[in-house]
Amino acid sequence: MKNWILPVALIVMAFPSTGMAQSKPLVLASQGSFFVGGESKTSKELTSSTSGPGAGETGDVTINQMYVQYQTPVNGSQHTPVVMVHGCCLSSKTWETTPDGRMGWNEYFVRKGHSVYLADQSSRARSGFDATKINAVKLGHVPPSELPNIFMASHQTSWVLFRFGPTFNVAFPDEQFPVQAADELYKQMIPDLNAFLPMPNPTWTNLAALASQLKGVVLMGHSESGFFPEQAALIDPAGVKGIVTIETGCTALKPEELSKLAKIPILIMFGDHLGDLPGPFGSFWTTGFDACNKFVQQVNDAGGDAQMMYLPKMGIKGNSHMLMQDKNNLQLADLILRWIDDHVEAKEHHK
Amino acid sequence: MKNWILPVALIVMAFPSTGMAQSKPLVLASQGSFFVGGESKTSKELTSSTSGPGAGETGDVTINQMYVQYQTPVNGSQHTPVVMVHGCCLSSKTWETTPDGRMGWNEYFVRKGHSVYLADQSSRARSGFDATKINAVKLGHVPPSELPNIFMASHQTSWVLFRFGPTFNVAFPDEQFPVQAADELYKQMIPDLNAFLPMPNPTWTNLAALASQLKGVVLMGHSESGFFPEQAALIDPAGVKGIVTIETGCTALKPEELSKLAKIPILIMFGDHLGDLPGPFGSFWTTGFDACNKFVQQVNDAGGDAQMMYLPKMGIKGNSHMLMQDKNNLQLADLILRWIDDHVEAKEHHK
Repeated sequence: MKNWILPVALIVMAFPSTGMAQSKPLVLASQGSFFVGGESKTSKELTSSTSGPGAGETGDVTINQMYVQYQTPVNGSQHTPVVMVHGCCLSSKTWETTPDGRMGWNEYFVRKGHSVYLADQSSRARSGFDATKINAVKLGHVPPSELPNIFMASHQTSWVLFRFGPTFNVAFPDEQFPVQAADELYKQMIPDLNAFLPMPNPTWTNLAALASQLKGVVLMGHSESGFFPEQAALIDPAGVKGIVTIETGCTALKPEELSKLAKIPILIMFGDHLGDLPGPFGSFWTTGFDACNKFVQQVNDAGGDAQMMYLPKMGIKGNSHMLMQDKNNLQLADLILRWIDDHVEAKEHHK
Repeated sequence: MKNWILPVALIVMAFPSTGMAQSKPLVLASQGSFFVGGESKTSKELTSSTSGPGAGETGDVTINQMYVQYQTPVNGSQHTPVVMVHGCCLSSKTWETTPDGRMGWNEYFVRKGHSVYLADQSSRARSGFDATKINAVKLGHVPPSELPNIFMASHQTSWVLFRFGPTFNVAFPDEQFPVQAADELYKQMIPDLNAFLPMPNPTWTNLAALASQLKGVVLMGHSESGFFPEQAALIDPAGVKGIVTIETGCTALKPEELSKLAKIPILIMFGDHLGDLPGPFGSFWTTGFDACNKFVQQVNDAGGDAQMMYLPKMGIKGNSHMLMQDKNNLQLADLILRWIDDHVEAKEHHK
């Protein structure tokens, strides 16, 4: 149990003397947290224990809700709020302090005048999940085969799939992810229970509801959730003023769906080294990239405003899958902020 | 799937026109998040899927880490930082915006000049957990009997055990919990995986490490975690300048342990209606209260500074188990802040 003797390097990372500490004070008009969605479910397996609270009880629990944490800057009403939702095996921590202790996009966007809403996906982190099935297996009520899959991303898979380098612990020469702090990223990882969820994924429905409730937002998704903004807009586009899709595989849509999305400005962003991965990962990112390029073309053919920002093509090299944590993360944030200015807010002003 | 059509009441709760909105801007010197602790574990059951990423792979994951989110006010160096850790089936949401949309203790303590650190217990919420055993059962590698228990608190159990009233959906006449918003509390509830953890509980070790790292804090626990500050101080008292234990069952300690804790100011707080619950819950709180009174006496007999704040005895009536969410939550926070002034900081000044 010596894990509490932290190396000095980690302490420095958690409390950096550069970056945040040198920033001006952050002035918030308000902050807080709340839930969107959620429904009651009667469970007969609240516990697998045969004694103590809940044993043998049939009772109600709330499932499929989505936890949202927000901050509004003092000048926040001038800009469109941004809702950020994280990817597989992660939580809203994705958008906060980077693994090497720099400012995350959550605070940076607030400092640039946008209210920011961080959403933990339904069934992940502070949104909770439904453990009924797991207890039911322990109690012998259902067979183990009924357990949905839980996915954990290993350090080895993450390093290569997130494109830190071609082989575990070997970095690309121009790598932008702060690889010396990779262990801090691994601590962010949370087993993914999305296979426990019904369809449509409640996170999509909850994002659509949040957008409506806030009367207009930019929805931003990443990786597993990269296309969630589009899915939310297909359920209810009312509050979706703009979409930012970061590094995902875009889903093939029907013409009527494309027409719906053609009414919303869409930005898609991809980093570097998409085709530089070995073996089984070889075509993972190029397939997603190709699908998203096709999606952009289709939305624009339907009269929409979709744009692919492929960073290497813009001269920005070495970015990993974790764009919001890369060493140039604030440069990339500026690209998104500029895009919101030009495509979402300029459009609003012309109405 | 109509759960996204939120009643107006909930929208008002999430964005109250009173309370936070009327407050002065919140001025932060810094904010961020990081992890404490965590260790690598090799897992052969990263997924129970037989295809796709992780299938058949043996790889490493990080477990037992503790996620911490912090805010430092501009005048924060004048006061002792406070670390808040939540109870069973909950997350750090406990300390944030109340179920009926009022300011939580996290922001209130910051506004009163204290840096606040919110810790998600190891194996809960943004701290992640180890799903290896669950996948191993699905894959047939181990029998279902090896699954640790997962505990979910039902609405029915929570209402009575948290002392909102004697019977589900019936409130005590003087109830301080905002019972009209009980559904919002139920959304905060997360299955409890603490039975998956080794002993000593990594959260204890991580809290001790955090306290040392910060060079002096007040540790505050609630319910399941109510005695975690004491457990952390027994592992390493170096950084523990004060302890606040809210509504728990105090553990019987040995004389040498009591001597260790006698060097740290300790506040214990209990609300109302401890003995007013029916049937199986009847002696739950009175047993814990009695054990904590005995603990206070023992610490003081060992030369310590321990104090029991039993709210009804002070004329403060009707408080539930969720003191930090009750309608008089800021009044109770003031009692704690005053106690820190008098017992922790005054003591510091005299050194």
